[in-house]
Amino acid sequence: MTDYSSQEYLDKLDAYWRAANYVSVGQLYLKDNPLLRRPLKAKDVKVKPIGHWGTIAGQNFIYDHLNRVINKYDLNMFYVEGPGHGGQVMVSNSYLDGSYSEIYPEISQDEQGMKRLFKRFSFPGGVASHAAPETPGSIHEGGELGYSISHSVGAVLDNPDLIVAAVVGDGEAETGPLAASWQSNKFINPIHDGAVLPILDLNGFKISNPTILSRESDETLTKYFEGMGWHPIFVEGDDPKLMHPAMAKAMDEAIEEIKAIQKNARENNDPSLPAWPVIIFRAPKGWTGPKEWDGEPIEKSFRAHQIPIPVDQNDMQHADALVDWLESYKPEELFDENGKLKAEIAEITPKGDKRMAANPHTNPGKLIREVIKPDFRDFAVDTSVPGKEVAQDMTVLGKYLEKVLSDNRHNYRVFGPDETMSNRLAPIFDVTKRQWLAEIKEPNDQYLAPSGQVIDSQLSEHQAEGFLEGYVLTGRHGFFASYESFLRVVDSMLTQHFKWLRKATEQPWRTSIPSLNVIATSTVFQQDHNGYTHQDPGILGHLADKKPEYIREYLPADANSLLAVFDKTINDRDKINLIVASKHPRQQFYSAAEAKELVDKGLKIIDWASTDKNAEPDVVIAAAGTEPNLEALAAISILHEKLPDLKIRFINVVDILKLRSPKVDPRGLSDDEFDAYFTKDKPVIFAFHGYEGLLRDIFYYRHNHNVAFHGYRENGDITTPFDMRVLSQMDRFDLVKSVALSLPDADKYGQLVAEMDAKVAKHHQYIRDEGTDLPEVKNWEWKPLD
Amino acid sequence: MTDYSSQEYLDKLDAYWRAANYVSVGQLYLKDNPLLRRPLKAKDVKVKPIGHWGTIAGQNFIYDHLNRVINKYDLNMFYVEGPGHGGQVMVSNSYLDGSYSEIYPEISQDEQGMKRLFKRFSFPGGVASHAAPETPGSIHEGGELGYSISHSVGAVLDNPDLIVAAVVGDGEAETGPLAASWQSNKFINPIHDGAVLPILDLNGFKISNPTILSRESDETLTKYFEGMGWHPIFVEGDDPKLMHPAMAKAMDEAIEEIKAIQKNARENNDPSLPAWPVIIFRAPKGWTGPKEWDGEPIEKSFRAHQIPIPVDQNDMQHADALVDWLESYKPEELFDENGKLKAEIAEITPKGDKRMAANPHTNPGKLIREVIKPDFRDFAVDTSVPGKEVAQDMTVLGKYLEKVLSDNRHNYRVFGPDETMSNRLAPIFDVTKRQWLAEIKEPNDQYLAPSGQVIDSQLSEHQAEGFLEGYVLTGRHGFFASYESFLRVVDSMLTQHFKWLRKATEQPWRTSIPSLNVIATSTVFQQDHNGYTHQDPGILGHLADKKPEYIREYLPADANSLLAVFDKTINDRDKINLIVASKHPRQQFYSAAEAKELVDKGLKIIDWASTDKNAEPDVVIAAAGTEPNLEALAAISILHEKLPDLKIRFINVVDILKLRSPKVDPRGLSDDEFDAYFTKDKPVIFAFHGYEGLLRDIFYYRHNHNVAFHGYRENGDITTPFDMRVLSQMDRFDLVKSVALSLPDADKYGQLVAEMDAKVAKHHQYIRDEGTDLPEVKNWEWKPLD
Repeated sequence: MTDYSSQEYLDKLDAYWRAANYVSVGQLYLKDNPLLRRPLKAKDVKVKPIGHWGTIAGQNFIYDHLNRVINKYDLNMFYVEGPGHGGQVMVSNSYLDGSYSEIYPEISQDEQGMKRLFKRFSFPGGVASHAAPETPGSIHEGGELGYSISHSVGAVLDNPDLIVAAVVGDGEAETGPLAASWQSNKFINPIHDGAVLPILDLNGFKISNPTILSRESDETLTKYFEGMGWHPIFVEGDDPKLMHPAMAKAMDEAIEEIKAIQKNARENNDPSLPAWPVIIFRAPKGWTGPKEWDGEPIEKSFRAHQIPIPVDQNDMQHADALVDWLESYKPEELFDENGKLKAEIAEITPKGDKRMAANPHTNPGKLIREVIKPDFRDFAVDTSVPGKEVAQDMTVLGKYLEKVLSDNRHNYRVFGPDETMSNRLAPIFDVTKRQWLAEIKEPNDQYLAPSGQVIDSQLSEHQAEGFLEGYVLTGRHGFFASYESFLRVVDSMLTQHFKWLRKATEQPWRTSIPSLNVIATSTVFQQDHNGYTHQDPGILGHLADKKPEYIREYLPADANSLLAVFDKTINDRDKINLIVASKHPRQQFYSAAEAKELVDKGLKIIDWASTDKNAEPDVVIAAAGTEPNLEALAAISILHEKLPDLKIRFINVVDILKLRSPKVDPRGLSDDEFDAYFTKDKPVIFAFHGYEGLLRDIFYYRHNHNVAFHGYRENGDITTPFDMRVLSQMDRFDLVKSVALSLPDADKYGQLVAEMDAKVAKHHQYIRDEGTDLPEVKNWEWKPLD
Repeated sequence: MTDYSSQEYLDKLDAYWRAANYVSVGQLYLKDNPLLRRPLKAKDVKVKPIGHWGTIAGQNFIYDHLNRVINKYDLNMFYVEGPGHGGQVMVSNSYLDGSYSEIYPEISQDEQGMKRLFKRFSFPGGVASHAAPETPGSIHEGGELGYSISHSVGAVLDNPDLIVAAVVGDGEAETGPLAASWQSNKFINPIHDGAVLPILDLNGFKISNPTILSRESDETLTKYFEGMGWHPIFVEGDDPKLMHPAMAKAMDEAIEEIKAIQKNARENNDPSLPAWPVIIFRAPKGWTGPKEWDGEPIEKSFRAHQIPIPVDQNDMQHADALVDWLESYKPEELFDENGKLKAEIAEITPKGDKRMAANPHTNPGKLIREVIKPDFRDFAVDTSVPGKEVAQDMTVLGKYLEKVLSDNRHNYRVFGPDETMSNRLAPIFDVTKRQWLAEIKEPNDQYLAPSGQVIDSQLSEHQAEGFLEGYVLTGRHGFFASYESFLRVVDSMLTQHFKWLRKATEQPWRTSIPSLNVIATSTVFQQDHNGYTHQDPGILGHLADKKPEYIREYLPADANSLLAVFDKTINDRDKINLIVASKHPRQQFYSAAEAKELVDKGLKIIDWASTDKNAEPDVVIAAAGTEPNLEALAAISILHEKLPDLKIRFINVVDILKLRSPKVDPRGLSDDEFDAYFTKDKPVIFAFHGYEGLLRDIFYYRHNHNVAFHGYRENGDITTPFDMRVLSQMDRFDLVKSVALSLPDADKYGQLVAEMDAKVAKHHQYIRDEGTDLPEVKNWEWKPLD
């Protein structure tokens, strides 16, 4: 029986730590002579050593002590590296435990492999300076800070045996998202979820400032963490001899607390909110490195952040200091003659899948269970008379999701910032609840329970997005539904997730992961009482900037289209699917079959709303989005009544990015295909949900530039949904006018234009007086075109 | 001498509070018969009552007690309304104290005015349902949550006599930005800054969930706030009789603590970090409203969030309940026969500028002091031989800013997330410091002091942006400098600030405010060791979506251009100026005169880099951004050597949005002007700092579509700055190739294309082997064109 607290064990752990530190420093500076088995020459040193030192030794220490408790308690654990920079940590430890070489055989566990490892760190085309998709065992990119806890929580949901060790940098801890994420403990069910063990790495400094939390006393920090429901366990010092037993004790305490919480919860079916442990780890920034340089402190200072000693291939003046530093780890005690970690040290690493870098949840291909999906047609609205039925698209989706949730327990989740009900997903609460471990006070509360597939009780888009990311990165499924405008709060998180996907899919060893599905609802042309601040469809342009392979943008115009979008995306992989959906009562138009075609092809000529009889039209009217579709159809009604001979083609577009040229998007319609829909030169009137810049971009490479764009023109206010459209000239009257003015014989239609102007004027007057929309607008119904 | 704690005074305060509640409920439901002086008829009620009730009575209570301490202590105070919804609070109180009618005379203090006030709330074109630009006394739009504390802190910096009462909703408190902003106390200097008095409004519920903090015990909340350095003062209850004296006592305590802190700090020149008070206010959501409806609780439940009783013009069934509710405030005791608040109640409101809605800081025109700006030419780099000098643009700017900061103490500030040094602004630390009230440990720390014009010691873009917003909204000046990619963290804050500007400039009574200046540096084509996550120029497209009147985007290519941009924007008003700036050593090209012209006109044909001799060129090469400019000039060098007869026109673009068509942007170049630069049909090769979609949008309406775009193609990695350009084909070799392929006789240039392909291949090989750029690239120098 191993004594994990014996001096002998801790000595081995110390040796292992020194090896990790050695390999980490080597990656910063060296490209050859990795074990210093000959005098260091200029050519052994990188031309431009770049990377970060300050966080390394502390994190290696944490990592190695996590290895110890994995062994001692036979844990299923992986590592989330919150501190932005310190990419060597996970790489070095993965290299030492053999998992790195299994994935990258050329980086062998010998002198040659070590040389290659050193060279490629922070080297063009090589290894990133933070934990990244190319880092074994990582699900978390440290390039943008703030999400380590929310990612970790997302990962442990429905993974009862998993513990995620989430190292939080004290710089990261100052960000908004991280500060809010300490409240995540209210959402972890100790029975069917795993545990997150946060380790706050208080090394004291950021890139050039001290950190706020590090300047607080233990007493103050205890209050802070107890004030958020955690049990803090402190470890502090800089003498490794004292720190090893102290850390071993703290780790044991933390793991035993987690085990005790879970045992109690599971044996007694007790889902009450526990005080989970958090380790507060104070060790110096730049620990074990140069103490000072040029009379200024390095260790225990911000100056340790990046490269502490100026040595490079063209400046070897201080090479001795580098050699002294490297030799301080006594590499000769650590590596055998081939350059491999000595067997007696290596024996203390976890084995196989127990190695954090090889944890299956971090590369979850084999763990993924497909979503069992119902036939979306079973939930379809009857549209045999287009426009007759009125339904709320999101509520219809809610009924479909009710089935999805009950058929996919512990594999499908819904996330949001307190908006699930507002977003009209009420039907799902017939089969599940909001997971919430804090106190519940019914009847003042509603739909809360310690266990449930919805997590929406924290008003934070960062948390909802972060949880979903953690959930899909570990191979499960779900979506995040948000008010459209406030999706922009997580613009940069979406960017970073996209960047992860792009880089991860370039790694042959990484498996696909479920797509990140995001619903934007409470949308711009619908915002009435929330007003101007809630009006922003710009997420469409934001995501359209990214690599098209990873991005889809769906604008279903009604419930059946929304169902068909879900049917297509629910088992999708490696994408971000943005779904812009309406939640308000709307007329329903498209059959399930039409909807499927709309989604599969991306767009469709709607024959029952066209009068071109498959011949060349006089005008093409296109619409993307719920309100654009509605207004376009209403405009067609008016046009057909007023100009019965006008040959109109109506196109509904659901997958807007399909309209892009193949020059921009490999999925884009060819010019011939595009022209077959939009013609080469007939007037096109395009009613669009988003900003018009995206449409101009889309049409730039197309033949047809005879287009009038009607999108959101940032003319918002607190007003009715129809007035919102009038303000942006995306209403039926302005669309009719736009058609008339676009026709070759436009001057013939002066009266029609005047009529439409009169309608708009009447609308303005009516809304000033009554505060509501014209009855003819409110009561409008689609009538079949004769 | 008034006894502010007497029962008589508190009774008047209660009456005032009831009046505020009455007026707030009236705004939700009524459009006529505001004082119920005749039986309520359907036509008196709105067709669609919309708005929010839950937060109102609690906030009115807070507001009215703030009025009390303003009187008692003669305070200079204004109100920041954090809880998103509850627009009636500030409106009702402003109406009752007369300030509203001073601004909006038609909303008079009589029955007719009250009727108009009621009607226009949450009515098309009327008053927003949250505190907004049209709300007197507001600098803070509650539409997006999370920024109330950071705005308030920005406002009190350098305003020693000001106290901002920042009401934080318990929903808002769950957001990341708000959670991080409690640490703002580390940045408030008690000597020369004012004070923020946060009031955490724990009414217990959000839109459909309980709130996390409200479910914590006082003991836990005490730990939480003490753990962040605050002194919490609790007020709890639902009986107004008990709550008035309790709140009065708590408010007195808080104000006296603030006064004592400031007195000590100012008299003893003691800038140590104090424990500022925070009031934790627990009163029911929906307080004073309907207790229950249909057997379900309303008060003390999420159900109080919006409209609690279903009464509207078309559904008067429950009108009695509404009347009972309104009459519970006893309007007959509150308003005189004309409908004006009775004089004996009105007398307790603060007067003149002491009224929070009339506080001059909230509409700061008269307070604004122009920035005393040096002549930027005094700091200009010598470019008499273009490309000879090498300088770091941001460091040159730092020297200019050194002067700005020392000439504008307490009127100009720099904000950032721990990046001021990284962004190369070191020179400013010769004249100022980072303001940081926590412990300072030199020599491990650097440039920290309790007082200074830089605030950058919290790693939070939200905080930096929020502080700057608060600072400029109250009439002072400064900028926020950020890594370009992580400006996206505050995308939505920039959107909301823009929306504020648009709406504020529509209010004739609102004065201009200094522009929000944002520097994006550490930019995409420069990111080497930070890698792919740090590469995102999309902020350009994000802001370009907004109304052009309020947005400028500058891409200065060198130090003198950057100085000229600052010269233009430093005293600018009512805009968001995005300035994309380089921080790395770069060759310097443009004279101060050229730079000024570039900024004034937005773009310029660079004659010394052109060979078209003012005649029609064979090709136009354009560049926007530092690296695009550099690569374009290098490409011109190659082209001129290889094809000496080629007539090249080179255009540098600084103000990229000037290129837009007047159809999109009123500042845009006319087609004639545009064609004079870019020709109608000659090949244009455009090297661009951002995503290419923005350029396609810009060129859509122009004659010339013979354009090859070379922007950022999301091909990033951890690699050298030059390789970053190669990956996106924005490098000199690819630009030369692009020119050759664009010429009418392209097939003649096969050899040149092959040469360029060979250069690119050589680059790839070299970077694989050496990890650095080709010497011919590193050592390239501009040579005058013969």
